[in-house]
Amino acid sequence: MTTLSPHDSKSPVIQAAHRAKDAAAVLAPLPRAKKDEALLAIADALEARTAEIVEANAKDVAKAREAGTSDALIDRLTLTPERVRAIASDVRDVVALPDPVGEVVRGSTLPNGLDLRQVRVPLGVVGIIYEARPNVTVDAAALCLKSGNAVLLRGSASAYESNTALVRVLRDAVDGAGLPADAVQLVPGESRESVRELMRARGLVDVLIPRGGASLIQTVVNESTVPVIETGTGNCHVYIDAQADIDTAVDVLINSKAQRPSVCNAAETLLVHQDIAAEFLPRALDALADAGVTVHADARVMAYAKESRATVVEATEEDWETEYLSYDIAAAVVDSLDKAVEHIRRWSSGHTEAIVTTSQQAARRFTQLVDSTTVAVNASTRFTDGGQFGFGAEIGISTQKLHARGPMGLPELTSTKYILTGDGHIRG
Amino acid sequence: MTTLSPHDSKSPVIQAAHRAKDAAAVLAPLPRAKKDEALLAIADALEARTAEIVEANAKDVAKAREAGTSDALIDRLTLTPERVRAIASDVRDVVALPDPVGEVVRGSTLPNGLDLRQVRVPLGVVGIIYEARPNVTVDAAALCLKSGNAVLLRGSASAYESNTALVRVLRDAVDGAGLPADAVQLVPGESRESVRELMRARGLVDVLIPRGGASLIQTVVNESTVPVIETGTGNCHVYIDAQADIDTAVDVLINSKAQRPSVCNAAETLLVHQDIAAEFLPRALDALADAGVTVHADARVMAYAKESRATVVEATEEDWETEYLSYDIAAAVVDSLDKAVEHIRRWSSGHTEAIVTTSQQAARRFTQLVDSTTVAVNASTRFTDGGQFGFGAEIGISTQKLHARGPMGLPELTSTKYILTGDGHIRG
Repeated sequence: MTTLSPHDSKSPVIQAAHRAKDAAAVLAPLPRAKKDEALLAIADALEARTAEIVEANAKDVAKAREAGTSDALIDRLTLTPERVRAIASDVRDVVALPDPVGEVVRGSTLPNGLDLRQVRVPLGVVGIIYEARPNVTVDAAALCLKSGNAVLLRGSASAYESNTALVRVLRDAVDGAGLPADAVQLVPGESRESVRELMRARGLVDVLIPRGGASLIQTVVNESTVPVIETGTGNCHVYIDAQADIDTAVDVLINSKAQRPSVCNAAETLLVHQDIAAEFLPRALDALADAGVTVHADARVMAYAKESRATVVEATEEDWETEYLSYDIAAAVVDSLDKAVEHIRRWSSGHTEAIVTTSQQAARRFTQLVDSTTVAVNASTRFTDGGQFGFGAEIGISTQKLHARGPMGLPELTSTKYILTGDGHIRG
Repeated sequence: MTTLSPHDSKSPVIQAAHRAKDAAAVLAPLPRAKKDEALLAIADALEARTAEIVEANAKDVAKAREAGTSDALIDRLTLTPERVRAIASDVRDVVALPDPVGEVVRGSTLPNGLDLRQVRVPLGVVGIIYEARPNVTVDAAALCLKSGNAVLLRGSASAYESNTALVRVLRDAVDGAGLPADAVQLVPGESRESVRELMRARGLVDVLIPRGGASLIQTVVNESTVPVIETGTGNCHVYIDAQADIDTAVDVLINSKAQRPSVCNAAETLLVHQDIAAEFLPRALDALADAGVTVHADARVMAYAKESRATVVEATEEDWETEYLSYDIAAAVVDSLDKAVEHIRRWSSGHTEAIVTTSQQAARRFTQLVDSTTVAVNASTRFTDGGQFGFGAEIGISTQKLHARGPMGLPELTSTKYILTGDGHIRG
């Protein structure tokens, strides 16, 4: 009379999703020790089969070179024996993290004597759509496995050989540890249609996490019926308040912008209170120049630029919403803290905003009014990161408000269920 | 240079959403006392203006009668002075609930001395799409206001006059309490196009919660780019284990099915372990008959039906996935607990499943393997409810895994943000 989920769809993507769902049902009740065993097997296998992985990767790299891919992208794509060892070491770090599954989030005995517990359970099937870096393949699989989820991986075509080799190694290790190999799968097919099928597999896939550029994320958000966690877009602001220590302000600004400009938690806009502009901007503009940053300045910032070493261009409205991911920063003078908040509310992607201030009142007001995943007081925007936050690992940084917001660690890869225990309790 | 969100869209729905977003920014930092004041003003206003509300409602009721609407639906639509008083009293109950906003969910001092706090914040703008009952208008507005959210209400055309009057009363009260009236708005327009615009207002509306029948919910899930919380579909199961107290089993079954069959937490399928079928089913079938329940039986249940008083029809595969919401139940005999779990995994909507057993091992296995919002052991499925769980109020029961699962109270209407405080910390 009853059978498990039908595997009779002709689509390889839907078939893979069905297999993932079945695997997820096996993973869900597993104790931590079993999952850690599989993760250790994965780390060992990555090291033992490094040659096979590097060889496959060389094909992707050769193809990328032929296609005239930039050196930066080729560097992100390349796997060396050292890099494979580092990936294996990251998997061992995941072994050391606590298992979120089974945690009792809350519990109480109800007035009628029923015992109510809310416990963490895996999400089920997690789909990850990502771009060139093959290390994401292993990182994502390890985090999903540790949290009891099956994973469907959809990497970029440019890393196809690398991902295929990595997933082969992962599946063999998982299988060898006695867990279902289908806990880790590459989404079959390289066409856009296969991505579309994945995005429409509601009921089979529990969540999709796109990791990559803004256009990838927009496509997934617009076309998916599977719930999506939006990640990564970071138009981050640094606001220098009327009362601020100038040295601190310059340090936080330069670190936020220039320590690693290519990442989502790098600052993209500087806002300066008018009362401190004359004191702060000359120093800041020189420091930005020394860091190699081009300033996209509004008229009030421009007034200070001429006497500085800064490379300056006139800001247009487009600059306020641009995530440069480069040595560029938009800059404006604002009349008040509230005007800075207004600017942020209008233009920010809601990732991270920092205030530099010596005023307790200003810090309190800024943190109350600014609605972003992270509000930093006298600290660099660059700290918004799962590793920095002590989560031990990160599957991405959510910039949406539902389910998870900010850096997502293992608990963010779980849902909960309620367990209600009685002695034949019925409702009156 | 900077202005608040542009209100220059020509669509009245998008304009309303912009106003809601601005109102949400005002609500977010408000302390509990201010929000409670507005809620008390709402309760008082509902009582003071009962005549106006009942009069508007009478127009909807008259129109519904003309249209030949069923008595049951007309009853759900009708507002009497007593019902308006009850609605006002529910609002006062919300005043008594704790404010989730500002709660520190977790916090620590990082190794570098940065203080990290994760605090609850409102979601922002919540859209509710619902069907005939006008009390939802006030309930939803009160819960959203208490949790610091602006609400966009889209009720059914059949309750248009009632909802318009209620929202007028609510907005006047909110305004009188010094809060932005646009915290509570009806979505303008009665066309389907206006719902479609609401579903596409990503970036303005933070979450949509459809409350109503399966087809409404499916439409929203399929068409919305705004994140959706799926609610309410309940194909709930009661499983009677091989070892079970027969009295308890009959009581839990009858209460789960017949105490209030029209709601989502009522049971729709009975599964019986083959080893207890001969003892349990004759008693259960008679008890179901006495409760007026028709049994849609598989062949093995049918074998017992002939000697009972039960009204029985043959079950087809369709019965296993049907949410009857009536005095009907599907019933099957299963070979084992694991077969019951398989059946549930295949057919359940993931709302609530109950096991009746005296075996600790069986209870443990069932709660581990069944992945639904609520798993009840020796308790009726009817307990899955925010009020019963002690949440004090409920905006709906989420049957999805992301963000919230099971009954949603005030905390489920919030997100979080991280506040990071340092002394000029920069990343090395």
